[in-house]
Amino acid sequence: MGENAAATTAAIIVIGDEVLSGKVEELNARFLVRELRALGVAVRRIEVIPDVPDVIVDSLRAAAAGFDHVFTSGGIGPTHDDVTIPAIAAAFGVPVVRDEELSGLIRQVSPLERNLRMADIPEGATLLRGPGSADACWPVVAIRNVYILPGVPSILQRKFVMIRDRFRTSPFWSRAVYSREGEGVIAGVLDKAAADFPNVAIGSYPHIEATDHKVLITFDGRDKALVDRACEQIVVGLGAAVVRVE
Amino acid sequence: MGENAAATTAAIIVIGDEVLSGKVEELNARFLVRELRALGVAVRRIEVIPDVPDVIVDSLRAAAAGFDHVFTSGGIGPTHDDVTIPAIAAAFGVPVVRDEELSGLIRQVSPLERNLRMADIPEGATLLRGPGSADACWPVVAIRNVYILPGVPSILQRKFVMIRDRFRTSPFWSRAVYSREGEGVIAGVLDKAAADFPNVAIGSYPHIEATDHKVLITFDGRDKALVDRACEQIVVGLGAAVVRVE
Repeated sequence: MGENAAATTAAIIVIGDEVLSGKVEELNARFLVRELRALGVAVRRIEVIPDVPDVIVDSLRAAAAGFDHVFTSGGIGPTHDDVTIPAIAAAFGVPVVRDEELSGLIRQVSPLERNLRMADIPEGATLLRGPGSADACWPVVAIRNVYILPGVPSILQRKFVMIRDRFRTSPFWSRAVYSREGEGVIAGVLDKAAADFPNVAIGSYPHIEATDHKVLITFDGRDKALVDRACEQIVVGLGAAVVRVE
Repeated sequence: MGENAAATTAAIIVIGDEVLSGKVEELNARFLVRELRALGVAVRRIEVIPDVPDVIVDSLRAAAAGFDHVFTSGGIGPTHDDVTIPAIAAAFGVPVVRDEELSGLIRQVSPLERNLRMADIPEGATLLRGPGSADACWPVVAIRNVYILPGVPSILQRKFVMIRDRFRTSPFWSRAVYSREGEGVIAGVLDKAAADFPNVAIGSYPHIEATDHKVLITFDGRDKALVDRACEQIVVGLGAAVVRVE
């Protein structure tokens, strides 16, 4: 998949028994893949894992080593099932420390000692805000290439939007061709284009419920000219099978 | 998370660049977690990974060794991006072979030589159908504890429903309590119940958009009496904070 050869990559790790049990619909990975795509970042892995420290440690270590950015979602509140912060600290071999700035923010909104647990961060973590954010707004905790986001979708979205400009890179260029012939008929043409254009990601998706076409063929890459040429080659190769080009 | 201590476990591996790029909404893992939950199977991991053979091999090996059942979705058509079958074969160290029974089924519906690629399976794989299925219906290909499902949601659903009875185990028992106090206030009560009932999974989820409560507390386990007792202890502990019990 050549689209990603030189791309900035990311992994998303959703921490939450509630998603694995089907009780809660997963919205955070869905939001992040679209946002990151628009920023030019290629999400290469999504994991949904349970609230189990050892599992989080293993996933975090592999993802932090394998991708440019890692986004975690969930497990950062004040209750017994909020185990993300200690697990991330363990993954990097650092202790958990209580941050003074976060403690101050929490004390402004809550008299409860217990809520101060939300001021605990891995040692060496930094607090990130957006360029126009007031100092009083709640920051994103980040350590190395890991960005720690909450599980509540509306808060995750607000926090990600605040910091998203720092992830912006060159965007993807995309085309699409709809074929009235099925995959078996067009596979040879697709194979050749995939071989001729290693830096263009060519995807093939049967749309069995569609009435005017059978397959959607997608083209993605950072080099607009290459993407357009790959698309053109397939349009020529498919001939009368082409329903439309986007 | 005691709910899963003795549970039958499963992992779901979604293979597809189209989900990672945000072009296609992920429906298959969502369907499978609910179905498996209803059958009493605890999904302990979901991964969305790209159409890259080495990545599929690594994920497959880890999941097949770590969970009772593994379900894959996607990458099994006749085009260049359909790499799941060779990757699963490689994960188990077996060659890909063309299955005669599947070849016959394909020849009935398509004259295209190319489509016979969909008759390729890992050596040693079996073809599964449901108890009442006609021999002519399209089977699920399975090898050891791995069930290979397609990416098209409507077909995946039909195939899973055909074989689902073989995964049925003792069901979960669930309760829920809604609290008008936030997590910081109730965390002590939750901690104690989590420690007192290690075989009941107790989850705590802030509902910041709700108007009549602040937190949903969930209880899940295989032992109904234990689940009910854990729920009762928290209801007593929360006192006037309880909005309702389900």
